[in-house]
Amino acid sequence: MTNASKALLIAATGEDPEPYRQDLARRLPGLAIHAEGEDYDPATIAYALCWKPTPGLLASLPGLEAIFSMGAGIDHILADPELPAAPPIVRLMHDRTRDQIRDYVVHAVLHYYRQMDVAARQQAEKSWKFLQIRDKPKLKVGILGLGEMGSTAAQGLNALGFTVLGWSRSPKSIEGVTSYHGADGLAEMLPEVSYLVSLLPATAETVGVLNAGLFNALPRGAVVINLGRGDHLVAEDLLTALDSGQIGAATLDVFAPEPMPEDSPFWSHPAVRVTPHIGSDGNGPIIADAVGLNIERMSRGLAPEPIGDRSRGY
Amino acid sequence: MTNASKALLIAATGEDPEPYRQDLARRLPGLAIHAEGEDYDPATIAYALCWKPTPGLLASLPGLEAIFSMGAGIDHILADPELPAAPPIVRLMHDRTRDQIRDYVVHAVLHYYRQMDVAARQQAEKSWKFLQIRDKPKLKVGILGLGEMGSTAAQGLNALGFTVLGWSRSPKSIEGVTSYHGADGLAEMLPEVSYLVSLLPATAETVGVLNAGLFNALPRGAVVINLGRGDHLVAEDLLTALDSGQIGAATLDVFAPEPMPEDSPFWSHPAVRVTPHIGSDGNGPIIADAVGLNIERMSRGLAPEPIGDRSRGY
Ligand SMILES: NC(=O)c1ccc[n+]([C@@H]2O[C@H](COP(=O)([O-])OP(=O)(O)OC[C@H]3O[C@@H](n4cnc5c(N)ncnc54)[C@H](OP(=O)(O)O)[C@@H]3O)[C@@H](O)[C@H]2O)c1
Ligand SMILES: NC(=O)c1ccc[n+]([C@@H]2O[C@H](COP(=O)([O-])OP(=O)(O)OC[C@H]3O[C@@H](n4cnc5c(N)ncnc54)[C@H](OP(=O)(O)O)[C@@H]3O)[C@@H](O)[C@H]2O)c1
Repeated sequence: MTNASKALLIAATGEDPEPYRQDLARRLPGLAIHAEGEDYDPATIAYALCWKPTPGLLASLPGLEAIFSMGAGIDHILADPELPAAPPIVRLMHDRTRDQIRDYVVHAVLHYYRQMDVAARQQAEKSWKFLQIRDKPKLKVGILGLGEMGSTAAQGLNALGFTVLGWSRSPKSIEGVTSYHGADGLAEMLPEVSYLVSLLPATAETVGVLNAGLFNALPRGAVVINLGRGDHLVAEDLLTALDSGQIGAATLDVFAPEPMPEDSPFWSHPAVRVTPHIGSDGNGPIIADAVGLNIERMSRGLAPEPIGDRSRGY
Repeated sequence: MTNASKALLIAATGEDPEPYRQDLARRLPGLAIHAEGEDYDPATIAYALCWKPTPGLLASLPGLEAIFSMGAGIDHILADPELPAAPPIVRLMHDRTRDQIRDYVVHAVLHYYRQMDVAARQQAEKSWKFLQIRDKPKLKVGILGLGEMGSTAAQGLNALGFTVLGWSRSPKSIEGVTSYHGADGLAEMLPEVSYLVSLLPATAETVGVLNAGLFNALPRGAVVINLGRGDHLVAEDLLTALDSGQIGAATLDVFAPEPMPEDSPFWSHPAVRVTPHIGSDGNGPIIADAVGLNIERMSRGLAPEPIGDRSRGY
């Protein structure tokens, strides 16, 4: 199959393919683009851009060279029991995404470090009370997950003089980050952490990792910032820890389910900031550019990146 | 007079001298420390640490080698009609202060750039609505005042990829900052600015600089962040501009007078964030360290720094 005859299939359950088609067409002018359900020759499809792809669909594409995820996670693709074994599953990653996550985390940590939550409460009470700025070296940030997102957030915090600790599956050597790994590493790190930022991926092992045991291992009054996945958090455990004061405050960007239902107690909890999954915006032009850069890499004989690991699940 | 017989006088109107004395004694163990009103030999006083010093007091100290301000500004010292002409007036400056101002400004700009104000309103309404992240290069930050504080804030914003424009009296060459100066420069800069940060000093010229004319020269919906002085801002003009939508939001850290009176409309304005002059905390240990570093410099024959300019007034 020549490069010119290759096509891309948009396989995105519950998403309107049109905006994606337009962004892709603008970024990759030569490429034929189809959407699931349309009339196309399966043999021509070299690339699939997927969100929760219909089980079996990808297996019907004999010439598939790469499966592009529309998000940072690949769990929604691995859920397909007939997933073809050969093509690499490419995670969505873009410099703009790294930038956005770093900005979100820097803002959230500064928000608590500079007591902007306290200042807002004082404003509501029309109360003028000076707030002493605490010693930065005494307030360490712990990041769960030191991948693309966690390591970028660490760099942003480091540049502002924060001491950063990080936890991952395997040991890491990242400048300015004290690396912890495995269950023992987590137990060692948590008592040191005033601000806990979670940027873990969605896997079987990470479900429920933000639970009472973890909260109790943090120093009293620590802050939890969750940008990973909603199901990492045991919501009732967080509410209990907030009400006892064990956790001082939380900023949550991800929820299970999303949109967060109207009756969730997080909406009106005075110590919880809710943001509607805006850590980054994997929007059409960014997805198209990330896919475009990788198709260009592949046409030069290079592997696309970053490739998700099927056995690890992320 | 030998070094050992030199003494420091705390001349701080309305402040309890004791905490300052303790911090100074810890930092400068050999130095004799007196406070205004106590029994001391005026001829021994080589250093005065001042906040709104009693007019005439400094003129009574024949051996004065340096006047240290307890704040970044020197206007409260220049107000003394009998101020002796010889000793340098040393502004309070410390790496920790630079750090704190940078953090405050970075937080405030990210707060609006990442629409955290909108997210908070949505949370109050239990409304889940995704917020598209805007293109950073299209949203420029303008800083009024490119001195110690303004240039440090600029560096912090630059490191996060913001385009920074800055305004000062004299033209500047600061990496990553487009420099504007004088009245023409301001008129040229303002239409480009989405986030306006004021870090101007208190002088006769800067009073009322944040007024209707300036607000109207900004693009509609621009954000104003004032960390300079409260009297830079014409409060009624800001309220009018907020109500018309010409200014989208404001974060104010400084007020005239302080503490801000309970009947100020800023307390309850939905588009205004009020913080109680916490941009930096020139607290006792920091003042003592800044004074200590400068006394050490002087004992090595160097001039203290930074020296305020009496004719410019800052
Ligand atoms: N809120 C948002 O808008 C937003 C935006 C982007 C991403 N995210 C979230 O951020 C997550 C991380 O993204 P990423 O690109 O940084 O992923 P990544 O590059 O795959 O990194 C994942 C990190 O988590 C660590 N990890 C995985 N399983 C672990 C376990 N069981 N115990 C300890 N550490 C474990 C990995 O350790 P190893 O390095 O040792 O493998 C790695 O450091 C995504 O899955 C997504 O949920 C959220
Ligand atoms: N909120 C807080 O907690 C907090 C903390 C620290 C400081 N501050 C405020 O920040 C102010 C600035 O501090 P700093 O240490 O950066 O002062 P600085 O080093 O003296 O710098 C002042 C800057 O303002 C510029 N400027 C002065 N008058 C001007 C005019 N009429 N037109 C245009 N530009 C003018 C100066 O221009 P040139 O460079 O050309 O002289 C200089 O760039 C302080 O006075 C204080 O009010 C607030």
